Amino acid sequence: MSENKILDRVNSPLDLKTLTLKEMNRLAEEIRQLLIEVVSKNGGHLAPNLGVVELTIALHRVFDSPRDKFIFDVGHQAYIHKIITGRKEAFPTLRTYKGLSGFPKRQESEHDAFGVGHSSTSVSAADGIAAARDLKGENYHVVAIIGDGAMTGGMSFEALNHIGDTGRRIIIILNDNEMSISKNVGAMSQYLYQLRTGETYNKLKHNLENWLGDMKHGDDVLEVIDRVKGGVKYLVSPGSIFEYLGIKYFGPVDGHDIEALLPMLTAAKREEGPVLIHVVTKKGKGYTPAEERPNEFHGTGPFDIATGKKITKPGAPPTYTSVFGKTLVELAEKDKSIVAITAAMPEGTGTNLFAQRFPDRFFDVGIAEQHAVTFAAGLATEGIKPVTAIYSTFMQRAYDQVVHDICMQNLPVKLCMDRAGLVGDDGYTHHGVFDYAYLIPLPNMTVMAPKDENELRHMLLTAMEYNAGPISLRYPRGSGVGVNLSEPLHTLPIGKAETLREGRDLTIWAIGSMVAEAEKTADLLQAKGISAGVVNMRFAKPLDEDLLCENAAKTHRIVTMEEGVLKGGVGDAVMETLNRYGQMHMTAVLPFGIPDEFISQGDKKLLMHDIGLTPEQMAEKISHWM
Amino acid sequence: MSENKILDRVNSPLDLKTLTLKEMNRLAEEIRQLLIEVVSKNGGHLAPNLGVVELTIALHRVFDSPRDKFIFDVGHQAYIHKIITGRKEAFPTLRTYKGLSGFPKRQESEHDAFGVGHSSTSVSAADGIAAARDLKGENYHVVAIIGDGAMTGGMSFEALNHIGDTGRRIIIILNDNEMSISKNVGAMSQYLYQLRTGETYNKLKHNLENWLGDMKHGDDVLEVIDRVKGGVKYLVSPGSIFEYLGIKYFGPVDGHDIEALLPMLTAAKREEGPVLIHVVTKKGKGYTPAEERPNEFHGTGPFDIATGKKITKPGAPPTYTSVFGKTLVELAEKDKSIVAITAAMPEGTGTNLFAQRFPDRFFDVGIAEQHAVTFAAGLATEGIKPVTAIYSTFMQRAYDQVVHDICMQNLPVKLCMDRAGLVGDDGYTHHGVFDYAYLIPLPNMTVMAPKDENELRHMLLTAMEYNAGPISLRYPRGSGVGVNLSEPLHTLPIGKAETLREGRDLTIWAIGSMVAEAEKTADLLQAKGISAGVVNMRFAKPLDEDLLCENAAKTHRIVTMEEGVLKGGVGDAVMETLNRYGQMHMTAVLPFGIPDEFISQGDKKLLMHDIGLTPEQMAEKISHWM
Repeated sequence: MSENKILDRVNSPLDLKTLTLKEMNRLAEEIRQLLIEVVSKNGGHLAPNLGVVELTIALHRVFDSPRDKFIFDVGHQAYIHKIITGRKEAFPTLRTYKGLSGFPKRQESEHDAFGVGHSSTSVSAADGIAAARDLKGENYHVVAIIGDGAMTGGMSFEALNHIGDTGRRIIIILNDNEMSISKNVGAMSQYLYQLRTGETYNKLKHNLENWLGDMKHGDDVLEVIDRVKGGVKYLVSPGSIFEYLGIKYFGPVDGHDIEALLPMLTAAKREEGPVLIHVVTKKGKGYTPAEERPNEFHGTGPFDIATGKKITKPGAPPTYTSVFGKTLVELAEKDKSIVAITAAMPEGTGTNLFAQRFPDRFFDVGIAEQHAVTFAAGLATEGIKPVTAIYSTFMQRAYDQVVHDICMQNLPVKLCMDRAGLVGDDGYTHHGVFDYAYLIPLPNMTVMAPKDENELRHMLLTAMEYNAGPISLRYPRGSGVGVNLSEPLHTLPIGKAETLREGRDLTIWAIGSMVAEAEKTADLLQAKGISAGVVNMRFAKPLDEDLLCENAAKTHRIVTMEEGVLKGGVGDAVMETLNRYGQMHMTAVLPFGIPDEFISQGDKKLLMHDIGLTPEQMAEKISHWM
Repeated sequence: MSENKILDRVNSPLDLKTLTLKEMNRLAEEIRQLLIEVVSKNGGHLAPNLGVVELTIALHRVFDSPRDKFIFDVGHQAYIHKIITGRKEAFPTLRTYKGLSGFPKRQESEHDAFGVGHSSTSVSAADGIAAARDLKGENYHVVAIIGDGAMTGGMSFEALNHIGDTGRRIIIILNDNEMSISKNVGAMSQYLYQLRTGETYNKLKHNLENWLGDMKHGDDVLEVIDRVKGGVKYLVSPGSIFEYLGIKYFGPVDGHDIEALLPMLTAAKREEGPVLIHVVTKKGKGYTPAEERPNEFHGTGPFDIATGKKITKPGAPPTYTSVFGKTLVELAEKDKSIVAITAAMPEGTGTNLFAQRFPDRFFDVGIAEQHAVTFAAGLATEGIKPVTAIYSTFMQRAYDQVVHDICMQNLPVKLCMDRAGLVGDDGYTHHGVFDYAYLIPLPNMTVMAPKDENELRHMLLTAMEYNAGPISLRYPRGSGVGVNLSEPLHTLPIGKAETLREGRDLTIWAIGSMVAEAEKTADLLQAKGISAGVVNMRFAKPLDEDLLCENAAKTHRIVTMEEGVLKGGVGDAVMETLNRYGQMHMTAVLPFGIPDEFISQGDKKLLMHDIGLTPEQMAEKISHWM
């Protein structure tokens, strides 16, 4: 039957306009197959996309992209949108080097109205686009598609508050799958549950019946009672929370029922103010392993379609994430004041182990990094040791809270940033490359990065034992370098670097993930007859200024290596130090790091090669430089 | 009667416990007088404090600080709290150099449970403190006092969402004065208005009466109708929006009626979960000029008590803010695509002029910097030119949105940051000293700062005409340097610096507000026989690398001057550039800027002296350095 596929006929949203309901449902199944096939090979966000197949088809049937604008929140659920909007042939390149992005990207298609990767921006962006439309007297629809998890991010509320006030014509599709990435948390989520299940309405009806129940039942009375009962639904509409904010509520509607979706979406088009459509979907829908384990299939690596089993490299070292998670539990066994905080990422950050072991000391605050950090600050004022585990790129959301609540009050919060450096397939929205640059300038902040998964463990203990102020550590996505995990844990002296090898001609000052690359580079230089020392910096702040000056005085050449942006990064801090000590006139500095551009997606090795950060390239550049 | 003041007897919250109601009301009046006296001399946040006199007395009467913890949101309304908690004698030093802070500060008193200055952090901090309390098995109360404006900030919602879910015992005092700083905006504000006025309840009752109105009215029916009417209030409790989020709602209550406040606060103490008390207050209460013009008396300079008139320095040059505001209107007259966005600061940012002239092109989004920036990004995708006017320190809230929505998509949003550099009396939470450091590392971002109020105007035009990506400009609080405002406006070449004077011995590279100081420094050096050139950098990014290298080659000494943190700032960028061009070995660099510490409050001249940034100090240091 493959010669007869509906999908073969779908090259643009226009091709959906003439399909029958039956054909659309068949198309949904075909797209599901394609999703499963490609993601099983490339990895990606499978479960979220399986959940919105029918919804996306219905959206493209009712609206006219690119004239009408779709803004996908977070954006990892836009695969079907990509398939429908002319990117079907390219879809097998999803998330690969120079391939299709796993997220909407304005540069990729006119159908991607707004680029995204972080959560909770869609309603704000939709508001801006709709405001521009109204200013220009144009007349298209602006549709934000947002999950119930993303709805808990504060900026979603800021946008709803603005939209409800201005009454601007915007359609918000609330894709409610009871999950953000992990099981959703928060009061809003419970409220949505009540809406889904009709509990709000039932509770009110029940109250009313109780009042009226003990009255004399004449015919007139019964008529009133019936009328009142019917009225309750109107009196207290479901979705009141949105209605109170001035946003009309439609739903809930089954997001897998195209026949039910179409009239509701069509009705929304006729509204003159903001509308929210509450669509209930099932994450992982249609692929049993993903339905059963939606967390695992939220973002997945390659897997075997038949069994749903992950295809893992045999013998790979444990990930930084898992070493972090285990060590955190180990430390918390001994120190009851340690608590862990995640912003909707227990699995991603490895704090799920902690959650199982110490549920009372574990806080998943939802997609709410700002709250997570200030909540941690509050805990720290009372002598608790809060470990705030947030990806480097998402810590950006809490920048002001780090400045204003943590550093300004000098509170001993521990910021643990996973996914620091280039993350590979997720691409530019997810690379964690700014953290050195945004943390180094903050007074009172200590900035660490371990050279390997073993040092991560000792650094974590160091963070726990350090009570003089805030402290941060950052470590990369994926497997460690494969070293032994040494016991017992010991603290590292704050601000002291580690000399790994002495050199005659130059000294490489490397930090974090770049230490291993520095060693390889030094080996390659050795082969060229150049003697390079290697220092594991450990601390980007405070710098080991004594050792740095000593090295500069000895080798007169300092090479820095960091997996972070060069501007404002560790290399700049090294130069500033050398200048302050009057050493720059006799020291040449060659900094390696991320150049001043956004780095694309793909295998990390390819990306590192693109920006000249492989040991071979660095050794080559160093030997020329000399 | 002054020998008989109640305030004389109040040296700690304990002294309130035995006062009669009448005495508390007299105390309120005495505190009002003190507030007016001190703020009329020192300047400060008068209207917000006049609005919470009775509320603060009631809070200290019912709760036991410091055992119970008060967390004031934003914190500019904590003057009465300071007066009651042992800082009465020091109160006349409010906001002065080495005096009492205008905000709660942990270092200042054990009664200041959490330091603050930025908005919307209180509920998160309270949540953290309460979580610590529960972990430690302690049993005090945690009370967040938050305005209706601060409640619109997204992180407040994140915190409510978390608290409502965990059911943690926290008391939230919603101080509803219909204002944030300017007139409040947003759907939440309208909702609170309905609660205050009973409109929610009245609307429902009216609907119900309409349904029932046309029915036969037997006695039974009338009984049912009465009963149902009475029930509506229960059915749909006011404050449902909070109740839906799992937070019990009390109120509204008159915040100036101590007799009404006491039982409600006492009742809240008995609750086992989160409670929100909706307190209605009047900003400026008790001082007619402030009641009538609450915006003007939100944060005020010294004024004459009898007339309420501001005491202004005669002949002071116009402020940067007003020059910005007027120029923006001037440009917008000619270019219809220019719109202006503020986060609840129309007067503070000078965009109020724009709002009056172009109400349809003006957007006040509430205290919601994150939304403001992504909203601007949405507008920019459709060819609108959004001017996002936010203080430097508050732009920190939108750091991730600047990275992810503006820079990553390279959208031509214009970020205009007032209050850059040291702001004086407001102190460390309000100094705008990080913006160079957090913006320079971002790809695609252009970073400008004008040397005076005239250049600000030309830079604003430059920003409007620049469509290749995002662009920012930053300018200080207060008066300009007093130059003529030249016409016509012209654009400045991107990335080009301006040589103000040639020097033989060294070249000062200064930016923004430091250019005038550089000129003074050069004059002082001249008197010492040192010939210093001065360059007005204009751009922190892109740097004028050609001119920099030329200057370095000529004078071999470069001095940088910036009113921003040294770490990761403009000086570092200058060194990085010189190193990249191989000039560091023959160039000495001396950077001046804000050291790696949080700077306190007081007259800006005193602060600048403390950190060695007066022309005299810099000239002295430079001559020694040479």
